[in-house]
Amino acid sequence: MSTAHDLSLGELYKRVSEQGEVVRDLKAQNAQKDEVKGAVQKLLELKLEYMRVSGHEYQADAPPGKVPSDPAAQEAETDHVDPWNVQTSSAKGIDYDKLIVNFGSSKIDQDLIDRIERVIGKPAHHFLRRGIFFSHRDMHQLLDAYEAKKPFFLYTGRGPSSDAMHVGHLISFIFTQWLQETFNVPLVIQLTDDEKYLWKDMELEEANRLAHENSRDIIACGFDINKTFIFSDLEYMGQSKEFYMNVVKVQKHVTFNQVKGIFGFGDSDCIGKISFPAVQAAPSFSSSFPHIFGARTDVQCLIPCGIDQDPYFRMTRDVAPRIGYPKPALLHCSFFPALQGAQTKMSASDPNSSIFLTDTAKQIKSKVNKHAFSGGRDTIEEHRKLGGNVEVDVCYMYLTFFLEDDERLEQIRKDYTSGAMLTGELKQELISVLQPLVAAHQERRRSVTDEMVSRFMTPRPLNYTC
Amino acid sequence: MSTAHDLSLGELYKRVSEQGEVVRDLKAQNAQKDEVKGAVQKLLELKLEYMRVSGHEYQADAPPGKVPSDPAAQEAETDHVDPWNVQTSSAKGIDYDKLIVNFGSSKIDQDLIDRIERVIGKPAHHFLRRGIFFSHRDMHQLLDAYEAKKPFFLYTGRGPSSDAMHVGHLISFIFTQWLQETFNVPLVIQLTDDEKYLWKDMELEEANRLAHENSRDIIACGFDINKTFIFSDLEYMGQSKEFYMNVVKVQKHVTFNQVKGIFGFGDSDCIGKISFPAVQAAPSFSSSFPHIFGARTDVQCLIPCGIDQDPYFRMTRDVAPRIGYPKPALLHCSFFPALQGAQTKMSASDPNSSIFLTDTAKQIKSKVNKHAFSGGRDTIEEHRKLGGNVEVDVCYMYLTFFLEDDERLEQIRKDYTSGAMLTGELKQELISVLQPLVAAHQERRRSVTDEMVSRFMTPRPLNYTC
Repeated sequence: MSTAHDLSLGELYKRVSEQGEVVRDLKAQNAQKDEVKGAVQKLLELKLEYMRVSGHEYQADAPPGKVPSDPAAQEAETDHVDPWNVQTSSAKGIDYDKLIVNFGSSKIDQDLIDRIERVIGKPAHHFLRRGIFFSHRDMHQLLDAYEAKKPFFLYTGRGPSSDAMHVGHLISFIFTQWLQETFNVPLVIQLTDDEKYLWKDMELEEANRLAHENSRDIIACGFDINKTFIFSDLEYMGQSKEFYMNVVKVQKHVTFNQVKGIFGFGDSDCIGKISFPAVQAAPSFSSSFPHIFGARTDVQCLIPCGIDQDPYFRMTRDVAPRIGYPKPALLHCSFFPALQGAQTKMSASDPNSSIFLTDTAKQIKSKVNKHAFSGGRDTIEEHRKLGGNVEVDVCYMYLTFFLEDDERLEQIRKDYTSGAMLTGELKQELISVLQPLVAAHQERRRSVTDEMVSRFMTPRPLNYTC
Repeated sequence: MSTAHDLSLGELYKRVSEQGEVVRDLKAQNAQKDEVKGAVQKLLELKLEYMRVSGHEYQADAPPGKVPSDPAAQEAETDHVDPWNVQTSSAKGIDYDKLIVNFGSSKIDQDLIDRIERVIGKPAHHFLRRGIFFSHRDMHQLLDAYEAKKPFFLYTGRGPSSDAMHVGHLISFIFTQWLQETFNVPLVIQLTDDEKYLWKDMELEEANRLAHENSRDIIACGFDINKTFIFSDLEYMGQSKEFYMNVVKVQKHVTFNQVKGIFGFGDSDCIGKISFPAVQAAPSFSSSFPHIFGARTDVQCLIPCGIDQDPYFRMTRDVAPRIGYPKPALLHCSFFPALQGAQTKMSASDPNSSIFLTDTAKQIKSKVNKHAFSGGRDTIEEHRKLGGNVEVDVCYMYLTFFLEDDERLEQIRKDYTSGAMLTGELKQELISVLQPLVAAHQERRRSVTDEMVSRFMTPRPLNYTC
């Protein structure tokens, strides 16, 4: 049997390409997880060997000897962001300025933050001030309307793929709760249990169960029960003619070519995946919720979400005017880094990549100390002399999310950068912020009753004044 | 400006191909009806000119000079049957024996008819005896189960594309009503208003209104209100979590490649069309109707339908075992011919192609006399001498559908074939059958109240003994 090491570059290229096909086919057939994992592992090994032999990365459209068709595109691909994959090779994480250009959104600049503060008459949330929410679509137009006493509503969501949510999952909910309180507006929260069933190796009933489990963590973020409707797609679709009607309206106005371009779907993807984007689009329209908005089709929507969800809403904004609805406005959040570094998004399936909302104080301490990627130097002497690098230090990044005190954060930045603060001390700072935060969340989650979950998830009128 | 007449064969081939693209693009963009119609007209003219010049039909994969890749396939394409298009060039209509082979279904032979008569203890419906329902899937297995006291349910449907239903639309409902009465089983009737919106230039609300209008004609066929549930997709999707769950289960197990192969969908089709087949599949499973079947997932389904709907259920039967459900059995109906001849299916949009359920006695008489394609001879003398041809005579075909008296039908066949009966007399026979049939339908339809429609369309338990 020949191994990869014996092969010519051309033969190797062919093997990588064939193995890619194998992986795609297995995924399309919803093959066993282990089988897919094994095939992916083999693909990675072949790609590595190809890199070793050729001196450059494998590219699907560039067999050996052929010059890559577009070197600019190649460079831009260093960062990859879509709803299912986020990849970067930089320890600082994704280049968000580049992403804004690629996605065609707008940067949340000081002007916008100043304007928001004028409108709401109080300081903006630190997620805005610190650039954690960094990009937007149509926020000025939304604020114009708000100042003219035109109402809007909030829409955010979550794909319930696991019992265990981590602190990174809280970011958009913490911010949405602040928006709800600040603007006194109704809010709908979509739990895409149908999506998780379609994408994962998971039973439909299990996805639906997880939606209910996750709703407890969401409710624990402090949403106003009189202004918030949480729904599972599987359940609400069976409760609302209007929701399905809007799904079908979107589905009529989006072609396979379009979802292929936006989401990268292929011919071997199931028709559920291909049509799902319409299900995530529909809650952007007020007529999907007649129990909240009556017959009104013109209440604009503001969607706070991770930037990886933007493709869904680019599509939604393209369709909206063609079916007679206003385009939703958006506020985009950056990615919450894994403990191991900002190259990837946190993963709910790797317990050490994240601080989970179920972690004990002891587990938090141990995880931060053992796994948090440090921007410190190799020795104390060097660190004291040269200082640490907050741009790659995960503890510092986490503090920008969770330490609300601006002055204290600035002091930590200075001290760590100068070397006055050691890595162990910085880790202790984070531990002392995360332990009470997670404990308080757990306390609030325990107080969420079955009745509360049921009420949040019942279609009903909401109280608010727009 | 050059006209098609001036062009070389190669140039003409290119023009046809380009115009085909134009038509596809217009359809993909949901262009105005008139615009599409104009483009299709131009395409037909170009194809005709191509035939005139080349001496053979235009084929997408065979430019002039190239031998068609598969002459057998070319011949098989004389008849084309899918849910949206039925075409044949024979005045006798579709070659159903060939269709059975192509579709891989089974012929309803005398053995099966004899067995049905033994099981039900009475003569089979004349639609079975006369080959109007001509093909089936798994009927022997369904009868085995029925004899072993295992229950089944009936499922049929209609796409509500027009206010005006014609007599051809009644065939499968008349037969389904007979099956319901004979086997004493529950029945679900799907009105695919979502499908009609996706395929036609029609508002969603209008499609939903037509579903309610059409349900009156369906109810007038005499279905038992205690055993029948009629539903609009747009409404029932919003009433049943279980229906949507089954739609999503089917959607996970069918790829774009598969629907492309089965239905001929392309990349420029909207994602609504691409995923719709799952909506037509889901009612084949008893768990889609918990108000009727409780938690039972194992009640088998029997679907009486036009043979053009078989692609949906081939797909459904492929998916069923993979999601833990029994495959539906099928009974396939042949096409009801247009007045102008059996080459095409009746069209609800051409008032003269059909006898509508709203036609007056006078209109029926006039339409049959003016438009019914005749198998008679050019002169009375010739007709008396040579006789008429019942194989192409539309009046005779209609009588096989609607004249229940076997002896009288046989006498008419003999007399017309021998020349003893003239075309005018044959037309009068049909008129005298259709006038009371349509009048009686109109009478029954008038007695359908809003309350009855509402009750038929309310999800509720049904009474039956399996």
